[in-house]
Amino acid sequence: MRYLIRFSYDGTSYNGFQKQKRDKNTIQGKIEEALKYINNGKDTKLTASGRTDKGVHALDQCAHTDIDVNITPYKLKRALNSLLEADIHIFSVEEVDNEFHARYMVKKKTYMYRINMGEYNPIERNISYQLCRELDVDKMNKAIKDFIGKHDFSAFCSNEDKKEDCIKEIYDAYIKKDNNTLYIYFTGNGFLKYMVRTMVGYLIEIGLNKRDNDIKERFKETKRSKIRTANPEGLYLYKVEY
Amino acid sequence: MRYLIRFSYDGTSYNGFQKQKRDKNTIQGKIEEALKYINNGKDTKLTASGRTDKGVHALDQCAHTDIDVNITPYKLKRALNSLLEADIHIFSVEEVDNEFHARYMVKKKTYMYRINMGEYNPIERNISYQLCRELDVDKMNKAIKDFIGKHDFSAFCSNEDKKEDCIKEIYDAYIKKDNNTLYIYFTGNGFLKYMVRTMVGYLIEIGLNKRDNDIKERFKETKRSKIRTANPEGLYLYKVEY
Repeated sequence: MRYLIRFSYDGTSYNGFQKQKRDKNTIQGKIEEALKYINNGKDTKLTASGRTDKGVHALDQCAHTDIDVNITPYKLKRALNSLLEADIHIFSVEEVDNEFHARYMVKKKTYMYRINMGEYNPIERNISYQLCRELDVDKMNKAIKDFIGKHDFSAFCSNEDKKEDCIKEIYDAYIKKDNNTLYIYFTGNGFLKYMVRTMVGYLIEIGLNKRDNDIKERFKETKRSKIRTANPEGLYLYKVEY
Repeated sequence: MRYLIRFSYDGTSYNGFQKQKRDKNTIQGKIEEALKYINNGKDTKLTASGRTDKGVHALDQCAHTDIDVNITPYKLKRALNSLLEADIHIFSVEEVDNEFHARYMVKKKTYMYRINMGEYNPIERNISYQLCRELDVDKMNKAIKDFIGKHDFSAFCSNEDKKEDCIKEIYDAYIKKDNNTLYIYFTGNGFLKYMVRTMVGYLIEIGLNKRDNDIKERFKETKRSKIRTANPEGLYLYKVEY
């Protein structure tokens, strides 16, 4: 039986989402360990909507898995949560048919990036980027709209992605301000490695008056521009839609 | 020279504020270690507005200290922050006269308590109480007003405080709701051990319809009532006023 599992996690203590050969300290590694235990000791793969980098969080990550043993979604959810540490939380499990694929069938993904412009806050140091400088939010608000649409994001991603198809579509992008905290949202059909953190880094440089908005020019480039990659701790996989 | 030091901290990794004989893993212990280093190796005491329990946070804790070496407030702030871990942050240092006392001269203190009524959030598990149940906020809003005023809080504190003067005055108490999160604020002239967490525990029981508001009756009691003490991770020392 195939299950769709939805979960949230605090990425602080993990080396990213994706399982690595010699390093089991990843979100995927931890969940697969629990799945194996539930699935009578059989190696059980978890296929997620995509990976997240070291230190990045998720409020709604989605993945599918195939389990041989007979278990209700409710019991699978409870069993997983009882086996996992407090920094990973399964909040929904449902049966899906065998055609369902958590990666290939994604329609939309939303990422959120959180920035503290105020005094350094030790309590939020791992869950919000402590920029601790004022940003010109009006300027950033104008610029962010240029990301919306179908573009070649080669300038705004890791160079590792060069060979991949860097044409992605951003459906929506906006900024919410709450006192000294900015929440930047991007919804799109897919995101390249470091793409959100690079777009945020670019917007931060605009907000600090360190560059003018030339996003439309950048879309003509074929490799990554010199742009700061914003820290991982501010980034959240916010929503995955099928 | 006497200095007033204002600082914030994430209490998660510490055994409370107050230094203990055999345990240096306290906020006070860590700051005194840094002060000693700055003060040419001389044992240097930090006198705070009051202690906070294990796991409790502070957004604005205040303390005074006496330093022999000649150092500007700005340099003392920088030196402390460079010596301290990322979960303690000194945000202000000022010279005060030798009469100033960070504990005895407190006029008002404000505590904030944060509750998540929604789905368990692993990202905020150490900085917000994960109650994960709906509360009747209207009922709580009505009840909380009964805490305001000068009362005997014997029923709402640790029994250890029995001998102390349990008459305290609450100047203001109110609840803010933001989606699934409640922020409960108490401002008063002083707080007994576990007092805020007990008042919050009482309000939670009201919000869960597990008890009716009989706060005025409780004030007549001379020892602690059977009330749940709300978890430490939701509690923040929010402001200290002189």
